[in-house]
Amino acid sequence: MDERQHSGQNTHMARLTIRINFDSGPAFGPGKAQLLEAIESKGSIRKAAASLDMSYRRAWLLVKAVEKSLGTPVLAASSGGRKGGGAKLTTAGREVVARYRKVEAKAAKATATELRSLEKMVR
Amino acid sequence: MDERQHSGQNTHMARLTIRINFDSGPAFGPGKAQLLEAIESKGSIRKAAASLDMSYRRAWLLVKAVEKSLGTPVLAASSGGRKGGGAKLTTAGREVVARYRKVEAKAAKATATELRSLEKMVR
Repeated sequence: MDERQHSGQNTHMARLTIRINFDSGPAFGPGKAQLLEAIESKGSIRKAAASLDMSYRRAWLLVKAVEKSLGTPVLAASSGGRKGGGAKLTTAGREVVARYRKVEAKAAKATATELRSLEKMVR
Repeated sequence: MDERQHSGQNTHMARLTIRINFDSGPAFGPGKAQLLEAIESKGSIRKAAASLDMSYRRAWLLVKAVEKSLGTPVLAASSGGRKGGGAKLTTAGREVVARYRKVEAKAAKATATELRSLEKMVR
């Protein structure tokens, strides 16, 4: 049962957004994580960008920004096969997304009590 | 001793930025936290804005944004005294900053290992 519905007093929500700031380049946050995941699942930057209502150019710039921060490629061409010309994540690309999602999960768990208290402050 | 210096291999840093998203209004992040703290220490919006190289108007809009999310005032006039016309934080104002700083600290602690791993990825 939903405690907030149960109490009938507070239905507000407070949720974290996590950004990881690198001294080596642009920060990595939810938008870049979502984009890399979409590239991995769609198999190309173009399809990933379309699925996120994002221009190809913007997606490409975001990928370049991640590569600048990590100092290593996150995309590899997946040529060959019937649908040649696509892209998939490198090991580094998969790792940065996986670690970001772990950071999100651990931060959410560690701060759940504080977030509930903040929610209770909202009138 | 600094482990990064010690290893001599990696001096990169990855740090969290935390934003708390409210369904009731704008998100609360490091800029608003810093502003509210400056108002509390300087005793007025104007002085706080100046100390952060921010226009009075921008500071005022940020305060209003916090009040919209919480649904309650975060600033109280501190009239009277020799320097009347100042502002101080309400209990809610102090509480939102304190909880935000606690969220930051708990998230940083819970994700330290992941952040060190991300730092090691940077070339």
